[in-house]
Amino acid sequence: MSASANTPSQTRERVLSGMRPTGALHLGHYHGALKNWLRLQSTHDCFFFVADWHALTTHYQQREDIERNVYDMVVDWLAAGIDPEQATLFIQSRMPEHAELFTLLAMSTPSSWLERIPSYKDQVERNRELATYGFLGYPLLQAADILIYKAAGVPVGEDQTSHVEVTREVARRFNRIYSPDAPILPEPQALLTETSRLTGLDGQKMSKSAGNAIAMRDTPEVVESKINTMPTDPQRVRRGDPGDPAHCPVWPLHQVYSDGDTRAWVQQACKTAGIGCLDCKRPLIEAIQKEQAPWRERAQELLADPKKVHWIVEVGTERARAVARKTLREVRGAIGLAY
Amino acid sequence: MSASANTPSQTRERVLSGMRPTGALHLGHYHGALKNWLRLQSTHDCFFFVADWHALTTHYQQREDIERNVYDMVVDWLAAGIDPEQATLFIQSRMPEHAELFTLLAMSTPSSWLERIPSYKDQVERNRELATYGFLGYPLLQAADILIYKAAGVPVGEDQTSHVEVTREVARRFNRIYSPDAPILPEPQALLTETSRLTGLDGQKMSKSAGNAIAMRDTPEVVESKINTMPTDPQRVRRGDPGDPAHCPVWPLHQVYSDGDTRAWVQQACKTAGIGCLDCKRPLIEAIQKEQAPWRERAQELLADPKKVHWIVEVGTERARAVARKTLREVRGAIGLAY
Repeated sequence: MSASANTPSQTRERVLSGMRPTGALHLGHYHGALKNWLRLQSTHDCFFFVADWHALTTHYQQREDIERNVYDMVVDWLAAGIDPEQATLFIQSRMPEHAELFTLLAMSTPSSWLERIPSYKDQVERNRELATYGFLGYPLLQAADILIYKAAGVPVGEDQTSHVEVTREVARRFNRIYSPDAPILPEPQALLTETSRLTGLDGQKMSKSAGNAIAMRDTPEVVESKINTMPTDPQRVRRGDPGDPAHCPVWPLHQVYSDGDTRAWVQQACKTAGIGCLDCKRPLIEAIQKEQAPWRERAQELLADPKKVHWIVEVGTERARAVARKTLREVRGAIGLAY
Repeated sequence: MSASANTPSQTRERVLSGMRPTGALHLGHYHGALKNWLRLQSTHDCFFFVADWHALTTHYQQREDIERNVYDMVVDWLAAGIDPEQATLFIQSRMPEHAELFTLLAMSTPSSWLERIPSYKDQVERNRELATYGFLGYPLLQAADILIYKAAGVPVGEDQTSHVEVTREVARRFNRIYSPDAPILPEPQALLTETSRLTGLDGQKMSKSAGNAIAMRDTPEVVESKINTMPTDPQRVRRGDPGDPAHCPVWPLHQVYSDGDTRAWVQQACKTAGIGCLDCKRPLIEAIQKEQAPWRERAQELLADPKKVHWIVEVGTERARAVARKTLREVRGAIGLAY
C-alpha cells in the first residue's frame, strides 16, 4: 500500500533518484524526469541527488565548470517545484559514505556482473577512453548510492532496469555472505516510468548537446523566437499548401502541450491549409510560456539569494548523511569492521 | 640526501607501508617486514597502517574476528619497538578518505592497467571466487593508500614492484589530466628491501596458515618445545650418524639467529656427529628467547592497558586523516569538485 500525501516521511517508502549535473535544465529534463519527481515527492520519502561523480565516469577528461552546473541544476529543481521540506536534496561528491560503501561492496561483487551490462560493452566499443575501472564500476557506484539509503524504489526508464537488477544482485550477495539471518540491504524495486522523450526544435530528441533545446528558464521572447523559427512539414512550402502534422516537428510538442480541442484544430486546419505554420505555433508558444512562468518567478527569487540554495543543499546533504552513516555502521558491523 | 635521525618529521621523506591484519605476528613477519620498519622509523616520516580493507579483497567470505586480529597485530608492532612518537599508526578502514580517492582515481584509470598485473591473473585462475571488482581494483586502492599521503617511498619486495609502478602511472595520468602545470600527486619510489623469508618449523616458508610458525609472543617454554620437536636432517637417524646442515630445516634458522662461531660449530659438529640435534638446537632456542624477551615485556604492559593501544591508534588515525584530507581537498579542487 503506498503512503498518502499526508503520511509523515518516516513511514513513506523511500525513493532515490539522481541527475548528472548538466547545468540549466531544458523542457526535456522537465517532462522526462522532474515531473515524475514532483509526483513522487508528495507520496514518497524522496532523496534526490546531484550525481557529479557519475558525470566523471564518462566525462573525466572534460574540465567544465562543474560547480556552476550543479547549482544551475538545483535551482531548476527548486524552480520546478521540488520542495526541500518534502524531499532531501544533496550532492553525491559531498558524501564520502557512498565511496566507502562502493569500496566495501566491490569486495564481494564479481566483475562479470558489471562487464555484462549491455550499455557498458556498447559504449566502450564506441569510445575506448571509457574503458576505465571507474566506468566499469559505474553500476556498482549506483548500487551504493541506492543501498546506502535502503531505498525501496528507484524510478527508471525501460533502458535502465538492468542497473536496478545489478543493485538487487549486489544486495542479495552482500546479505547472503555477511548477514544471512537478517538482511541489511533491502533489494530496491524499479519504479518504471514512461520515459517521455520530448522532441526538440529539430524533431530529434531534445538535448543540450544537440542544440535543439528550450531551457526551462528561457525568456518568453527566446521561446517565441525558437518555436517560430522551427522547421515544419517540408512538403508545405507555401501558405496555401496543405500540410500533415505527422511529418511536422512541431506536432509532437502539441501532443505534450496542447489540449484535445487545440490538437483537433491543428490537425484539421493544417491539413486543409486553413492556418499557416505561425498560427499553428501560437498556442504552443503560449502553453510553454505559461508553464515556465512560475518556474521563472521562483528561479528569480533563488538566484537573488544564492546562499539560500546552498543552505538547502547543505541541510539535505546532512540529512542524507545521517541515513548513510547509519547504514554504513550496520554494514561495517556485519563485515566485522566495527572498531 | 636522506634525512638523519634527528631531523624533525616534517622534513623527512615520507614512507608508507601496510600490513594485513593477520592477528598475532610470528618471527617471519618480524624478520620480513617489522625489522625494516624499525630501521625506517628513525630516518623517515613513517605511516604504518593496518590494511583491513585489503584483507577483504581476498578474504571477503571469511568472517574472522578482524577486530581482534587488528589489535593483536598492533600490539606486536609496538612490542617490537615501533614508536608511535616517531611513526604514525592507523587503520585503513577508519579512513573513508582512502575510499574517496580510490573512487576518484577509478574514473581516469584504464581497467587494462589492473588486468595486466601478473598476480591478478594468476590468482584469479587459481580461485574464481577472486574474480571480483574489488580484487581487480586492489592495486588501485593501494595507489590511493600511497598517494593520499604523497609518500615518497614504499618499501616493497621484488614481487611487488609492479604495484608501485601502477601507482606511479595512476599518479602521472591524474596529474596530466587534472593538473598538468603543477602535479598534485607525486610518484612514489619503490624502496627495495631484501625479503628475508624466514623458514618455519618444517623447513617451508614460515606462515600462520601452514602451522609452522613461532609467534612473536610465544612463551619461552613453547619456543623450546617447538624447536626441540622440529624434524632435522632425515639422513641422520641415530645420534652417531653424521648429518648435513644443508638438508636440515634447523640450519636456515641458525643462519638468521646464530653468529659465525656458532654456525661454524654447528657445521663441524653436525657433520662429524660430534653433537646431537638437541645440542644443535640449544643456542637457537636461546637466541630466539633472548630476541623475544623485550617484546614479551612490552606486550605484557600493553595488554594490561588496552585503552592505551586504542588511544595510540586513535591519535595516529587522526594524524593521518589531517594529511589525507589536505590531499583530498587538492584533488577535488583539481577535478573541479571543490564545492
